Amino acid sequence: MSLEIERKFLVKNNDFKKASYQQKTIKQGYLSTAKNSTVRVRVSDETAFLTIKGPSNESGTTRFEWEKEIDINEAEQLLLLCEPSIIDKTRYLVKNEHLVFDVDEFYGDNLGLVIAEIELSSEDEVFEKPTWLGKEVTGIEKYYNSKMSKNPFKDW
Amino acid sequence: MSLEIERKFLVKNNDFKKASYQQKTIKQGYLSTAKNSTVRVRVSDETAFLTIKGPSNESGTTRFEWEKEIDINEAEQLLLLCEPSIIDKTRYLVKNEHLVFDVDEFYGDNLGLVIAEIELSSEDEVFEKPTWLGKEVTGIEKYYNSKMSKNPFKDW
Repeated sequence: MSLEIERKFLVKNNDFKKASYQQKTIKQGYLSTAKNSTVRVRVSDETAFLTIKGPSNESGTTRFEWEKEIDINEAEQLLLLCEPSIIDKTRYLVKNEHLVFDVDEFYGDNLGLVIAEIELSSEDEVFEKPTWLGKEVTGIEKYYNSKMSKNPFKDW
Repeated sequence: MSLEIERKFLVKNNDFKKASYQQKTIKQGYLSTAKNSTVRVRVSDETAFLTIKGPSNESGTTRFEWEKEIDINEAEQLLLLCEPSIIDKTRYLVKNEHLVFDVDEFYGDNLGLVIAEIELSSEDEVFEKPTWLGKEVTGIEKYYNSKMSKNPFKDW
């Protein structure tokens, strides 16, 4: 169990793709999207994880997170138990000085949405903002993947 | 991921205690009690497990089950994220020919309730019924531990 401190931004253009050093194909579903905790099943290329997150703090930046790698075949079976619908996305890893942005390009019902996340070691950690980084959306619930699985971008 | 095939009974008297060869103290909570899946955190003496169960079949006997042992300190933290309320019980293991009955004596808001479960290898497996075994309650939802955490025995 650890603290996840994360800020989240929209993305202005596709320049992050040129800067990306790695891509992953991610498919994830939610066994629970309760207010107090979410339970996520994620298949990322050839690995799979079960992740439990606690409630966010007031700013939406920090949450408890518990994560375990699980068998990929078991993860595929657990995805069948998940609430509708499954989130499909490509994650682009983009170096930004000593930190890494995870930039998620969504497909399916969330097609058109691109979100950049950066994990920090403290809420007030300062980091350089690349030119492609747009408006901050940290703590805005509709941008939580767990919310987007129920209320996708196409319905906004 | 495996199939859990289980039948559940009320208990007529305390004779099962004399026949019990082992007891465990169990504390468990639910991160989700959705219709399609439940996510359970269980601390049983010095071990802890995360368990995900799928929906029951029509008879209430069979469900998909996925279980992983987890760190006990992490389990205690995950219990804090669970829905109210936590289930407290003592589990008595009672041999019955080649099978074992798990007899759960509940405390707290479920005090007074004692339930015996037997895990089978097929739905039609025949087993001897001990004299202390009462009415079958397999598939009756209010006897699911996940339901009893929300609607405990004291409110029935």
